Amino acid sequence: MKFKPLGDRILVQRIEAEEEMRGGIVIPDTAKEKPQEGMVVAVGDGRVLDSGDRVEMAVKAGDRVLFGKYGGSETTIDDVEYLILREDDVLGILQ
Amino acid sequence: MKFKPLGDRILVQRIEAEEEMRGGIVIPDTAKEKPQEGMVVAVGDGRVLDSGDRVEMAVKAGDRVLFGKYGGSETTIDDVEYLILREDDVLGILQ
Amino acid sequence: MKFKPLGDRILVQRIEAEEEMRGGIVIPDTAKEKPQEGMVVAVGDGRVLDSGDRVEMAVKAGDRVLFGKYGGSETTIDDVEYLILREDDVLGILQ
Amino acid sequence: MKFKPLGDRILVQRIEAEEEMRGGIVIPDTAKEKPQEGMVVAVGDGRVLDSGDRVEMAVKAGDRVLFGKYGGSETTIDDVEYLILREDDVLGILQ
Amino acid sequence: MKFKPLGDRILVQRIEAEEEMRGGIVIPDTAKEKPQEGMVVAVGDGRVLDSGDRVEMAVKAGDRVLFGKYGGSETTIDDVEYLILREDDVLGILQ
Amino acid sequence: MKFKPLGDRILVQRIEAEEEMRGGIVIPDTAKEKPQEGMVVAVGDGRVLDSGDRVEMAVKAGDRVLFGKYGGSETTIDDVEYLILREDDVLGILQ
Amino acid sequence: MKFKPLGDRILVQRIEAEEEMRGGIVIPDTAKEKPQEGMVVAVGDGRVLDSGDRVEMAVKAGDRVLFGKYGGSETTIDDVEYLILREDDVLGILQ
Repeated sequence: MKFKPLGDRILVQRIEAEEEMRGGIVIPDTAKEKPQEGMVVAVGDGRVLDSGDRVEMAVKAGDRVLFGKYGGSETTIDDVEYLILREDDVLGILQ
Repeated sequence: MKFKPLGDRILVQRIEAEEEMRGGIVIPDTAKEKPQEGMVVAVGDGRVLDSGDRVEMAVKAGDRVLFGKYGGSETTIDDVEYLILREDDVLGILQ
Repeated sequence: MKFKPLGDRILVQRIEAEEEMRGGIVIPDTAKEKPQEGMVVAVGDGRVLDSGDRVEMAVKAGDRVLFGKYGGSETTIDDVEYLILREDDVLGILQ
Repeated sequence: MKFKPLGDRILVQRIEAEEEMRGGIVIPDTAKEKPQEGMVVAVGDGRVLDSGDRVEMAVKAGDRVLFGKYGGSETTIDDVEYLILREDDVLGILQ
Repeated sequence: MKFKPLGDRILVQRIEAEEEMRGGIVIPDTAKEKPQEGMVVAVGDGRVLDSGDRVEMAVKAGDRVLFGKYGGSETTIDDVEYLILREDDVLGILQ
Repeated sequence: MKFKPLGDRILVQRIEAEEEMRGGIVIPDTAKEKPQEGMVVAVGDGRVLDSGDRVEMAVKAGDRVLFGKYGGSETTIDDVEYLILREDDVLGILQ
Repeated sequence: MKFKPLGDRILVQRIEAEEEMRGGIVIPDTAKEKPQEGMVVAVGDGRVLDSGDRVEMAVKAGDRVLFGKYGGSETTIDDVEYLILREDDVLGILQ
């Protein structure tokens, strides 16, 4: 099953960062509010401007992106977990 | 009786996801805030831009969509339960 | 006495839904936040866009509409109770 | 002394509704939030759009209008009490 | 020393209303939220629209205006007390 | 070291008003919320309109301005204290 | 690994200000809300206007900037700590 995000939304698969370890003890990661990393799987057609034109999406499927920890909706498609974000939640692209 | 949504609203019939079961026990689904699935039954004519033009609706009757758990109004038409959502509440289309 | 709503407002006469009954006992309807039904009696000339043009009203006198429970102002004209709503409070038209 | 409202403001003289009476006892009107009635005395030149044009006022001096209970500023000019409202606070015109 | 208000701001000198007196006792005026009266001393060049044009000021030096009690900044120039308001805080002009 | 404010921001050096004295005792100035005075040291290139054009700055280096007490960021450049304000925080120019 | 900020975002490496010392004692810096200093490492392509055009970025890689203490997301790329800010969080450029 394919998923087509609407408007300026994107479908992202989260890339889990390795937990920092000190002396073999995993430090849980609750206090830090660092961005999270993910792989873009599908993108919408872009936001509609007041002029009626669409803004071309700045990210594309395959991009490795950073995005804020809070925001987006978690969903499961064919037993795989994804995040649906708005493009504006994406901070930038890792190249 | 037919229902014609106004503006960028859509009429959706919810598709109940099967509850996850572990060892035969149904886990109630209160904590998760995953999107919900539905079938689009009717769509409005689209949002009016400041230019006076309308944005064409991105979903159409028959589309299977994901949408946020919170948002929209529940209504009953001819004894069938529906949700009235704004198109912007729709996260994307399952294809 | 006639009432001419201003801008994108409409004058609506509420259609009371029959209370659901179970075993002859009326279930009071406080918890449900379902939309309400009404008949459009008069409509304004429409919202003025930034371009100075007006958006044509999507509802007209005689339309049977659903609208959110909260919103609008109640008023009495010639001893009849009405609601004054903005067109955007109307979810759609029953046909 | 004359008063010229600015922009989309209007000067209104309130028309007191007769209190409802039951068995000769006046029921004070604190719970109801029904609109109030008034007579338009003077109107501004209208709101300026982003295009620089003005929106023509939809009400004119002499109109009998309904407006929300809350909103507007009370003022006294030549010992007469008035309300200064924005046109958008006016729900419609009684004809 | 002259003061040139910026944008849609105006410099106003407050005209103190005479306190109402009943039986020779001055009733302090804390509960009433009536507008205040003032004389316009200087005006800005007007608000800049998104088109880049300026909206011509609707008030000019010498106008006697009503304005809301709250809003504006008090200042003292050459030992005289003034108020700096935005034109939108002005309710209208007394003529 | 020079500082170039961004957009509609300005760099201002505060001019301390002399404290009012009554009978030789300095009255501390906590209750009053009068505007403050300053000298403009540097200005940005102006706010970008939706049309893509910039609004020309209304203040320039050397202007003596009044601005609200709250707002802006304090900074120290080459051991001198400055305020970085948005032009809209400036109430007007003393001439 | 390179990082390409999205839209009007910029990647900044913080320049730690030396703590003020009085008599050899470091004064911790909690009360002051002065701006912080940083070096711009990468910039986005700029904000998209309603006209569909982009606003050219006012800062570029290599600029030494001041920015507000609160705002932006901290991130670590190749073991170096960065801040991702919106250009509007930048107060100005030190030259």
